Order: sequence, then C-alpha cells, then structure tokens
Amino acid sequence: MSATPPIAFTTGPSQLHPLVADELAAAASDGTLSDSHRSPRFRSQVARTVEALRALLDIPPDHRVLFCASASEAMERIVQGTVRDRSLHLVNGAFARRFHRISQNLGFAASAIERPDGEGYDADHPLPGIDAPGSEGPPQLVAMTQNETSTGVRIRPDAIHALADRVRAAGALAAVDLVSGWPVEAVDPARVDAGFFSIQKAFGLPAGLGVIVASPALVERSRALQTAGRSVGGYQHLPALADAADGSQTVATPNMLGIRLLGRVAEDYLERGIDAIRAETDGKARALWDAIDDLPGLHPFVRGADADRIRSRTILVVETEPSADPVRAALRDRGFLVSDGYGPWKGRQLRIANFPSHSPEAMEALIRALRDSA
Amino acid sequence: MSATPPIAFTTGPSQLHPLVADELAAAASDGTLSDSHRSPRFRSQVARTVEALRALLDIPPDHRVLFCASASEAMERIVQGTVRDRSLHLVNGAFARRFHRISQNLGFAASAIERPDGEGYDADHPLPGIDAPGSEGPPQLVAMTQNETSTGVRIRPDAIHALADRVRAAGALAAVDLVSGWPVEAVDPARVDAGFFSIQKAFGLPAGLGVIVASPALVERSRALQTAGRSVGGYQHLPALADAADGSQTVATPNMLGIRLLGRVAEDYLERGIDAIRAETDGKARALWDAIDDLPGLHPFVRGADADRIRSRTILVVETEPSADPVRAALRDRGFLVSDGYGPWKGRQLRIANFPSHSPEAMEALIRALRDSA
Repeated sequence: MSATPPIAFTTGPSQLHPLVADELAAAASDGTLSDSHRSPRFRSQVARTVEALRALLDIPPDHRVLFCASASEAMERIVQGTVRDRSLHLVNGAFARRFHRISQNLGFAASAIERPDGEGYDADHPLPGIDAPGSEGPPQLVAMTQNETSTGVRIRPDAIHALADRVRAAGALAAVDLVSGWPVEAVDPARVDAGFFSIQKAFGLPAGLGVIVASPALVERSRALQTAGRSVGGYQHLPALADAADGSQTVATPNMLGIRLLGRVAEDYLERGIDAIRAETDGKARALWDAIDDLPGLHPFVRGADADRIRSRTILVVETEPSADPVRAALRDRGFLVSDGYGPWKGRQLRIANFPSHSPEAMEALIRALRDSA
Repeated sequence: MSATPPIAFTTGPSQLHPLVADELAAAASDGTLSDSHRSPRFRSQVARTVEALRALLDIPPDHRVLFCASASEAMERIVQGTVRDRSLHLVNGAFARRFHRISQNLGFAASAIERPDGEGYDADHPLPGIDAPGSEGPPQLVAMTQNETSTGVRIRPDAIHALADRVRAAGALAAVDLVSGWPVEAVDPARVDAGFFSIQKAFGLPAGLGVIVASPALVERSRALQTAGRSVGGYQHLPALADAADGSQTVATPNMLGIRLLGRVAEDYLERGIDAIRAETDGKARALWDAIDDLPGLHPFVRGADADRIRSRTILVVETEPSADPVRAALRDRGFLVSDGYGPWKGRQLRIANFPSHSPEAMEALIRALRDSA
C-alpha cells in the first residue's frame, strides 16, 4: 500500500494541510499528548491557537473563541444557550435545515424562511418577526448559513453584515454557520454574535473539533437565561465555555491535538497572508468555472444573473447531465476525489472543495482530468 | 528539543500507547483522514473499532457502542436523554459530583447520596427511592462512578452488578462512569444500561473521544420520552446516536482519527489478552503499594479494613505528609510525571495512573525514583 493516495477535493474532510504529517509526528513524540488539559503547557497552546485565530479572522478582544466537538454541536449549544421560546432560520440547504431542526428538537418554536436549493439571500431579504416584531417581540436567535456546504450557495459577507445589523437592531442575536466559509470568506466577527466552523473544511485538518466565535452579547444573554432559572445545558453550555475560555481553558478534556493542529495551520495562513489566500481561492474557482463553461454536460449548479454573488468560492457545485457517477469514477481513476451531490442531488452533482490546502497546481491538474473525463 | 520526554503516569491524558506514533504516521499519509464520515471506508473503520471493543469488553450484540466527544458529554447525553424528572447519584468524588450537577443544570430534581472522599459503596448500600419507591415512583436514572479518578476509589465490579440489579428491578436505568476503569475493570456491560469511558485514560490515546456502551432499554426509554413530546436533545441525542450506530455511522462528523486509534489499541489489547492485562495491572499496583508501605511520609489515601476492595487498580492515590509538591518535583527531575491531588487534595496527594500503557518495567523505575525522592 505505498501508492500515493488521490488528491482529495472532497468537501471536508478534505485534502490535509501539508503541515499535518510533521505536526502529528512531533505531537506523537514530544510528550504534549500526555499533558493534562489544565496544565500550563496546554493552556498556553490554547492561548496560542486563539491568538492566531484572532489575528487571522480579525476577532475583537471582547469576543471569545469557544471549542466544541463539531459544527453540529456548535449549532446545538448556541440554540440551547440562547433561545427562550423562538428562533428564525434562513434556510438555503441541508445544513441550514439541520440548524432549524435542532431548535425544533430542543422544543422551541423555530420558524424558517426557505429558498430553493441553489438560491440565496440578499441584504434586503424580508425577515419575519425582525422587520416588524409583533406583540410577542422578536425571536431570540436568527440563524444564517453563510456558505452552504450542501448546495454551494453563499450569502455575501456584506449581506451577512447587513442582515445581522437588522437582526441585532431588533434585539435578537445573529448566529452564522461559517463551516466551509471561514477563513476564506471575509465575514467580520464583530458584526455577528456567533460564527462557527469545523476544522476539517478550509483548515485542512482531521475532523473532530468545532470552533465558535462568540460575541459578549451572546454570552450575556445565555447567562441571563441561566440566572432566570432556565437550563442552558448540562455541562458544555455557553456560560461554562465562556468562563473556561477566559482562562485559556476548556470545560471538558477536549480534542487537544486538534486545537494544536488548528493553531499551527492558522499561523501558516497568517504567514501566507489572508488576502493572498482569498485571492488565490478566487483564482482557482475562476479557473474551474472557465473550464466548466467549455465542457458539455457540465454546468454550475448556482447560475443566473446573480450567480457571481451567491456562488460559493470554496464549495464548487457542478451539475451533471445525465449522471455524475461516471465522471466521479473517471476522476478517481485519475487520482482525484470529489464529493457527490448532497441529499436529493446525489448522483447529479459534483461538489468540489476549493480550500487553501488545494494548491493552484492541484486545481489545474483536476481541471485537466475533468477535461479528459467529462 | 530532542530530549526524551518524561514517562507520564498522569491520570489521563497519560502515557501514549506505543502504537500511537506509527498509527498517526500511517493516518497522515494513507488518505483516510480526507474520507467522508459517511464513506464506506470510514464506516468499515467504525465497524472494526466497535467489533474490537465488543470482544474486549464482552459487549452483548444488542448493546450499542455510541461515540461522543468526552465522558462529560456522555454524562450530559445520558441524563438529557433518559431523565423525565428525577435522577439519583452515588457520589464518591469530583466526577460523580459532576454527573449530579449536570442533571441539576438540565433542570431535573437530582438527589445524591454522598460518601466522604476516599470511601466507597458496597453492594448493599441503601438506595433511596429505589429500595422503597414512594408514590411518585423511582428516579428514572441512577448514576454510579465505578472508578473515581479524583479519589482513587473504586466500586467493585460485583458490587456494581448488584447495585445495578436493584436499580433495574425498581424500573430505573443504571448508568456507570467507567472513565478510568474500562477495560481493566471487569464490569459486564450486560449488567448495566450505560457504561462510558474516554480514550485518554486506560487506552493510552490522545484526548477527544468518549464512548458510551448503551443497553437496548436505555435507547428505548429515550425514544419513549421523545415520542411523548419531550426533548431529549438537539442533535447528538441518544436515539440519533443509536440510529447512526446501527449503520456503523456517527451523527456528526466525529473525531475519526480517535475512532481509528481506539480500534487499533483495542485490537492490541485483545492480542495481549484482557486477563493478562488485568493480572499485570494488579501486579503493578501491588508493587507500588508494597513500596509505599516502606516509605515514610507516604501512605495510601484509601485505607482501612476494606481498602483492598475499594482501592482503585488504575488510579493509585498516595497521600503525602506534609506536601506533595517536592515529591512531584523530584519525580519530574528523574523523568516521571504524576498527577497532583484533585480539588481539595491539591498539593497533598500524588495520583499515579496504572494503565496498560505503563509497562511493569516503567512502574519499577517509578518506584525506584519514588524511593530516591520521598
């Protein structure tokens, strides 16, 4: 089994960042994996990872970086910790739908506005209960999905900021799924109450860690609910996560290796420069879409007049006619893995990740293979 | 930084299993860390890990193996998923107290019976609400801590079985914290409704994965609560975890690397033989206690007539007079890390892990260092 594994353009877990192998080897031998999660050495690792993320994502000093196990857990902790009776969800795909269902599963009156798969939201999209709160007041939480990994639809960062401004002006909290958006998408943490991601997407890391960037308001609302006698969770709740974060600690023993790897990759991204990474990402996406234009039977899933605004930079979704299966198989034979369509789009789409760990050369090679396969 | 790191006798994270380094290197290069958590390859890894755990812990076919992020999350999911209004907690240290607090934090009437730190429970310990359920019926869940990592007190496996028999006969569910007990302690999963552990203890692995072994009754009770309209959680709830497990899947993208490492180490333990591992563990514990007998200023924290029954095999807690700090420092200078006392015992105890990754030779070396240091 010494054959080179294929290059993974899968939507996450995806191609590993090139530093992962060395960092795993160092971790296996330097004793840190035997440290207590309360040890000074691990706490300084937490501080270092948080510092790198602050610099990379421009996180304000009063916002906290909270660690959990996955983006799904992030959704659950945010809803459980902040919703008193109602939440509102902007649904543009399967992961936004999951956020909605989590609030329902927790027993809340969760309402949703839905866009068909492949369509998105603009800054001025009506927000029921926010634009004109009724006598019962606004929902406590509005959930948005900036970059929908299931459909390849994005909400532009400036639209996220504008929507969140309206949400916050109405007295609600704005939570944004940035799972496959950050750090590529320039959503400003200061403009939202919760932004969260998981490390197996654009950070190119092994799965098993979620990160929530939390505003002071988010934590204060959760503490207020708790003070009023409401349960905000059993153990990994927002107030406890925030208290731990204030001491560069974690609540339970976390995925310490994941926190270390994340810090290392964030530092690498800082060295490369986030603007350079974003420009490179745009360039790789353009190269793929230019190639797709010429290929019969393939076209962008997100199309139409506003396609350039709402088409994801990091999750490139290609519709195939008739079936995606032979194309995926041919790509695999040539050493490239891409993801299948999600849910109802299974077998009818290729979902191609375009993360910082995918070099321009690898993307060019994939495009050549696609030309040979399609 | 090429100096050999010290040998970690810390209570977890602890000394890494010797297979970890090679397995991390393999994972970094064989492409599996880029797999989808729904891919056939990862699902077969889940199946393989579960199969090894079934063989090692003698888990009945109708019991499920559920993955979460930590033992603390396990406590939270179990309480959230099964308690309707009341739980009962047998408290013999800080982690049992955490289980109790989690139920309170989730808004339930959680009662506790408490033993002083350093003392345990026998098979015939009175269980209020279980031995004589009042008109309101028994609590829905009784929580026990088989091996208290904070105090080094164990409840004998046969006492766990007898207590759980009474709990189940009364119609309640028996949940057992086996965090630092399994696989060394021979608690039979068939005799309890939930047994859980985390992989950074006796499996010698990097932290970030918890495992719940769940009885059919546990899952059915949770489904019944859900059917009755009660929230049993937002996403990672017991019914969802069980459904996923039935297809060798996980609910969210999990710590896939941790699941792989756990499978590999469980297979290694099977090759070594669990009886041999248990006998070796007992031998190492005896060697330490024999040495402590001769050392002035040191004695077992758990002592008295029934000490042999209730003293943990895997977490060896040594009381020091006057302070533990100089002994810990001297051990560190000699290349051995041990844990401090927990909570109120900080600075007054050494907590020494005795896991399968601690070889008899390493334990002998630690004992020599202790003789030189104390």
